[in-house]
Amino acid sequence: MTENKIPYKIYLEESEMPQAWYNVRADMPTKPAPLLNPATGKPCAAADLEAVFCGELVKQELDNDTRYIPIPQEIRDFYKMYRPSPLVRAYCLEEKLGTPAKIYYKFEGNNTSGSHKLNSAIAQAYYAKNQGLKGVTTETGAGQWGTALAMACGYLGLDCKVYMVKCSYEQKPFRREVMRTYGASVTPSPSETTEVGRKILAENPGTTGSLGCAISEAVEAATTHEGYRYVLGSVLNQVLLHQSVIGMEAKAALDKYGVVPDTIIGCAGGGSNLGGLISPFMGEMLRGEREYKFIAVEPASCPSLTRGVFAYDFCDTGKVCPLAKMYTLGSGFIPSANHAGGLRYHGMSPVLSELYHEGLMEARSVEQTKVFEAAEYFARVEGILPAPESSHAIRVAIDEALRCRETGEEKTILFGLTGTGYFDLYAYQKFNDGQMDDYVPTDEEIAASVATLPKLG
Amino acid sequence: MTENKIPYKIYLEESEMPQAWYNVRADMPTKPAPLLNPATGKPCAAADLEAVFCGELVKQELDNDTRYIPIPQEIRDFYKMYRPSPLVRAYCLEEKLGTPAKIYYKFEGNNTSGSHKLNSAIAQAYYAKNQGLKGVTTETGAGQWGTALAMACGYLGLDCKVYMVKCSYEQKPFRREVMRTYGASVTPSPSETTEVGRKILAENPGTTGSLGCAISEAVEAATTHEGYRYVLGSVLNQVLLHQSVIGMEAKAALDKYGVVPDTIIGCAGGGSNLGGLISPFMGEMLRGEREYKFIAVEPASCPSLTRGVFAYDFCDTGKVCPLAKMYTLGSGFIPSANHAGGLRYHGMSPVLSELYHEGLMEARSVEQTKVFEAAEYFARVEGILPAPESSHAIRVAIDEALRCRETGEEKTILFGLTGTGYFDLYAYQKFNDGQMDDYVPTDEEIAASVATLPKLG
Repeated sequence: MTENKIPYKIYLEESEMPQAWYNVRADMPTKPAPLLNPATGKPCAAADLEAVFCGELVKQELDNDTRYIPIPQEIRDFYKMYRPSPLVRAYCLEEKLGTPAKIYYKFEGNNTSGSHKLNSAIAQAYYAKNQGLKGVTTETGAGQWGTALAMACGYLGLDCKVYMVKCSYEQKPFRREVMRTYGASVTPSPSETTEVGRKILAENPGTTGSLGCAISEAVEAATTHEGYRYVLGSVLNQVLLHQSVIGMEAKAALDKYGVVPDTIIGCAGGGSNLGGLISPFMGEMLRGEREYKFIAVEPASCPSLTRGVFAYDFCDTGKVCPLAKMYTLGSGFIPSANHAGGLRYHGMSPVLSELYHEGLMEARSVEQTKVFEAAEYFARVEGILPAPESSHAIRVAIDEALRCRETGEEKTILFGLTGTGYFDLYAYQKFNDGQMDDYVPTDEEIAASVATLPKLG
Repeated sequence: MTENKIPYKIYLEESEMPQAWYNVRADMPTKPAPLLNPATGKPCAAADLEAVFCGELVKQELDNDTRYIPIPQEIRDFYKMYRPSPLVRAYCLEEKLGTPAKIYYKFEGNNTSGSHKLNSAIAQAYYAKNQGLKGVTTETGAGQWGTALAMACGYLGLDCKVYMVKCSYEQKPFRREVMRTYGASVTPSPSETTEVGRKILAENPGTTGSLGCAISEAVEAATTHEGYRYVLGSVLNQVLLHQSVIGMEAKAALDKYGVVPDTIIGCAGGGSNLGGLISPFMGEMLRGEREYKFIAVEPASCPSLTRGVFAYDFCDTGKVCPLAKMYTLGSGFIPSANHAGGLRYHGMSPVLSELYHEGLMEARSVEQTKVFEAAEYFARVEGILPAPESSHAIRVAIDEALRCRETGEEKTILFGLTGTGYFDLYAYQKFNDGQMDDYVPTDEEIAASVATLPKLG
């Protein structure tokens, strides 16, 4: 061991933490296509969006030009409670794999929400509080986003109404209890508390709900309660902006040791983690300063980038939200019961979709059993039990490291470890019991779903 | 904010991590009383213990003289995967409490076992592996220890047989799945796999098990399988030795900023966390270098220090283990269904018992509802959902800080935050639903249990 050996974990000093978010849109020659008002088919103006979202967040959503947006001091102070997150050199994994590759991961799971979602939750809650609002509403499926928002609101003393997909509410009672402990009210969706919920219940009395329905209820609750707005944990430009803190910290930590990654890998559902991780590196590439290989990893059961189309679509199944131009499988696409709940989204962030469309990023889809094999291997070697979502990135990082073992290349690999799997043990149990399957949609199924995309103009 | 402000989280550099464990027994003028062989009533010799425990661990168990015991390089490398753990300055908590006190906590929950238990698990597994053993056996109740041992064994490729109290096995399936994911075999106890298990099942076919029974099964499994030894997660001197890494890191981090705590607080079940946290500070006091106030916090439902007797007793309900001199409620004491599973032990570490007996440490007992009130408050303010066990320390730290608010004293308080509550949400649910009760044993119940202590000589 030499004196200058890179430590197992690199922690930035507080003084080295980012003071501004980086807005990758500022460096994109082709900007992501604007959101469209579904009623008019015209680009959403700020006024359209402000009925649903906080004013400051609407500004961030629409701002394609400002490169750095300062992080308010209150948010930076909150970040200090759980950030900087460690950049880990995976020495143990490298050794067990016998690879000449150097592997790093940015670990976002060391907070009670168990994921990176808290980075945007505190920002969105802060702006809501600052605008004098009473509270916010949202939906949650797997529960990471709802937990993060409950924590942020609990800290700021803001009311938090979470619509939780009914089957998750019943199957993940512990997620529900974390949210309640932080003071959030959690309502199983569909519910009797909204018009859309009552309508759905009348039509399908036994339904266990869907994310689309929960979004519709949360939006209705926000727009019918005085002093409330709706917030969302992924897909939107503002969320990628807040999550840029992941990539900026990772880059600062690597820069301290003069390390430049060759390949940067992240899992992608709505795109918030991947977008945040790659932003500052992508910025360098867009400005012509350096080349990187970026890999988005998605589940084979919900392959929006690798098998979807690039087109305008609804962000929600309920079709109440604006239309976004993105890679999509169609808003009616129902993924199989894949356990990586956070990646079961039919579309993809418009920013990432545009970058992928321009060939600036690769995408791969992986099957669930292979993902859990990688997850278990990683858990035993690196000591961290990863979330199923994060394990998609682990799978491809391991595949890339094994390729280096064959070729002898000493590539430097960076991947995002977005969170922990402590609330996903039902899925691990299925894997441990050998009862996990790998459903992949057929071409016909995808074609049928894509055929329902809205026709514009 | 000044330039020299203490950060929210103090992380030591890897080079500043302890290279040896500190053995507080070396500085104790009165050593803890020796373990006794239950068959002869005489002090256990190394040979007595080596049938059950690894050789190197027996040496550590009996060594009352060596002040510093080097940590093998392999263990130090494993520590680097999840240590140094952060020493957190609780700025948010101080502000919300409006106290002039300065509050610090050493947070041991940022690893998949969710607690400090991993510090000793890796040490014990390492020595077992080094001795050429095939595997180790243990029992687990709440599950933190079993998880930690499974992780350590998974890393080293050592077999791990965990006997899990049957009611926990059924009520905490997720704990079980974490252990299985790390490759451990988990058997609900009592089981058909041991003689003692079959005997208990024949006598009580419907029993849901007990920690005492699980210990007996684990010890039998270790002594009847070639190449196996039994390991234990608390109470023993060797465990306190390994856990001294907590206190040494905490002290090194405070020393870096010239901070000297006045009061040091930890929860106490078997004593592993408290003993580890206070060791180096207690050493200073024993050597006459400095004064500290130490407070052990135990549940009012299982008050061994505050209401037990200081006497020789069995460490296990099954009476197969050696006798230890300690504060005890009697090995037949059955605590009420207190949710802080890790603190439901009838006795207390012989080292801590001796220190308490000599008046070097205070003890307080707290009721469960007050503990969960503190836990929820802490979660919302500091962002970490604490384990019920750890929340006993939080309760008393908050009480001490509020006392400072009244007196105006600027005391510096350090407490141990041993772990996270992600697998304890059934208890949080009871609290959230207002269904938690505070059972405290009567004097008659304690007297009846204590009356069953073994008569010696």
